[in-house]
Amino acid sequence: MEKRYVLTPWEVKGKIDYKKLIEEFGVKEIDDELLTKIKKIAGNLHILLKRRFFYAHRDLDIVIDEYEKGKKFFLYTGVAPSRSTMHMGHIIPFILTKWLQESFGANTYIMVPDDEKYWAKKGDLKSIREFAIKNIKHVIALGFDPDKTFIFLNTEYIKHLYEIALPIARYINLSIAKATFGFSGETSVGLIFYPALQIAPTFFEENRCLIPCGIDQDPYFRLQRDIAEKFGKNKAAEILSKFLWGLQGPDSKMSASKPETAIFLDDDPEIAKKKVMDAFTGGRATIKEQREKGGNPDICCVYQLYYILFEEDEKKLKERYTMCKLGNLICGDCKKELAERVARFLKDHQRKLKEAEKKIDKFMYDGKLAQEMWNKRFKIV
Amino acid sequence: MEKRYVLTPWEVKGKIDYKKLIEEFGVKEIDDELLTKIKKIAGNLHILLKRRFFYAHRDLDIVIDEYEKGKKFFLYTGVAPSRSTMHMGHIIPFILTKWLQESFGANTYIMVPDDEKYWAKKGDLKSIREFAIKNIKHVIALGFDPDKTFIFLNTEYIKHLYEIALPIARYINLSIAKATFGFSGETSVGLIFYPALQIAPTFFEENRCLIPCGIDQDPYFRLQRDIAEKFGKNKAAEILSKFLWGLQGPDSKMSASKPETAIFLDDDPEIAKKKVMDAFTGGRATIKEQREKGGNPDICCVYQLYYILFEEDEKKLKERYTMCKLGNLICGDCKKELAERVARFLKDHQRKLKEAEKKIDKFMYDGKLAQEMWNKRFKIV
Repeated sequence: MEKRYVLTPWEVKGKIDYKKLIEEFGVKEIDDELLTKIKKIAGNLHILLKRRFFYAHRDLDIVIDEYEKGKKFFLYTGVAPSRSTMHMGHIIPFILTKWLQESFGANTYIMVPDDEKYWAKKGDLKSIREFAIKNIKHVIALGFDPDKTFIFLNTEYIKHLYEIALPIARYINLSIAKATFGFSGETSVGLIFYPALQIAPTFFEENRCLIPCGIDQDPYFRLQRDIAEKFGKNKAAEILSKFLWGLQGPDSKMSASKPETAIFLDDDPEIAKKKVMDAFTGGRATIKEQREKGGNPDICCVYQLYYILFEEDEKKLKERYTMCKLGNLICGDCKKELAERVARFLKDHQRKLKEAEKKIDKFMYDGKLAQEMWNKRFKIV
Repeated sequence: MEKRYVLTPWEVKGKIDYKKLIEEFGVKEIDDELLTKIKKIAGNLHILLKRRFFYAHRDLDIVIDEYEKGKKFFLYTGVAPSRSTMHMGHIIPFILTKWLQESFGANTYIMVPDDEKYWAKKGDLKSIREFAIKNIKHVIALGFDPDKTFIFLNTEYIKHLYEIALPIARYINLSIAKATFGFSGETSVGLIFYPALQIAPTFFEENRCLIPCGIDQDPYFRLQRDIAEKFGKNKAAEILSKFLWGLQGPDSKMSASKPETAIFLDDDPEIAKKKVMDAFTGGRATIKEQREKGGNPDICCVYQLYYILFEEDEKKLKERYTMCKLGNLICGDCKKELAERVARFLKDHQRKLKEAEKKIDKFMYDGKLAQEMWNKRFKIV
């Protein structure tokens, strides 16, 4: 049977079969037992875990077992500087990462690959770096610990990264790179080298690395795990998410070039409200019909947002689901409430964003972890 | 007709047809007119030019014309850190480079690509860097101007190099890289990226770059010339040499793993003498036969060394040639004299080598040009 979706680190297309991806990628589902353990240690369970938006993993069980025995891990994720401001989909891995940092006291490393974006021909260097700083501010605004978080622009931190990338690149030959990433003759030699850089931070500490990211990024870290084994180092663990739908329907994409498809972090809250009010729902053509037949929350973009981020309360969520199904909850009312929550989130975020500006140096250069990283000398092999 | 030689940046094999290479590579021969111009400006002509060991070029005529009109150029060459000490073949480009620096007051940049050697699996990083420092000392001992010469280890200077390599790598796609360098599936992604780094120093200054190197390195700079054009920058000029024979016969190779094939810069002068005495010559089986039929300097390794480096005097060289042909000069005597000259050269070089040790920091970090280069911020596109 042909797949109806495409999933690579650069392209996500079609209706994704998440169950099937688990088999295809050879990752594990995050099961109840693992969630119970995490809850026991953390005291609570983040909504993105509870609702299985992060639903698959590699070695997360090992990370948690080791943590229980007193062994620390560190977090690593990244944000590619994009022309548009970040949207809700972009910050999801960061929201979970921040929660993991808080709950487990983990050092956190955030890569900003200006080199990759440039080689992927997503703009000139100057603008990519401007986008990068904007994105970094959004990440900071999420509340990371400035002394336990190091955010770095690849081209600035390259001397350190390069030292680690040297043995990684020696291990990755062209055949492996092509098989893993499907490079073509058109691919720039920079992009072909880049996986060695993306893998490098997984060796920043002797502790095990845990990577919260979209499941599309798994190929990089599958490769890391082969390499780590050869080097006698820890294989990176991963905690892998699904993709947030766009506002246009289930499995639609949030697209930077189509503002109506996504809520951007710097959207005026009033505009964001309007976007929510215009979103695709599982509702019927008329209110009358909806009252009679009920709506379908399973294909509703509004319900998805409640489910993943905006309704923490299990009971209230269930209630909303049932009320919709029974035709007792009308889309207009349901959207209005979400619109309010989204607007509140944005107002709060945008307020924090102003403070984030002043903290950039701490995260990038002179916070405790940042200083350590600038003074560090790496020697991997 | 099949070629009887292989010539790539990594492999030189067989009897090379230097005339044919000029056509194949599309370079120009260095002609009398150009040499006359150079002599006029420099006051004299270096033996390596006079004897056409450097025999081909790209845009050297433009460089000289521009120089006459008051426009400066800069020199760029490199030394790959090799397990063995450098041999005579290795230092030939440096000998000419040093002369060009002196004669034209040109800034000189010398790359030491520890990354490339490591990716080419020529040792571990630690030893490659130890070799690198040894090689750098030999280069310094040749007498470069410490305020006009910057020697850099790629992994140390990477932040600067990378900034220039970014646009270069964006331009080189996998197809171009494969067509130019013939990479295979086994090639490390590091080596595939490396050409962008080797090209980078050609953009160190706005002035035109002149590269003295073996003709095998031309593919890198042919690529540079395509790129420079797209960027609206100066195409690099090249001055290209033949290859020095090994001591085992015409077109034999100097090989690090076979000490008898080459004179190494740290050979004990007495051992070097013995190597010369054991070298392949154009002599006959017996002295009697030689007296009768004469020798053949054209295939003689000893004569080649006189020709290229150890007999500057045109008249004396001709005399030696004729005497040999006539059977009046016996190999033993001819070798003995060369052995003395080689030993003298080595003693002198090894004395300078001790002083070179103390100058390393000047060339790499705090000489005038080095300081400028560490403080420089590049912006190519």
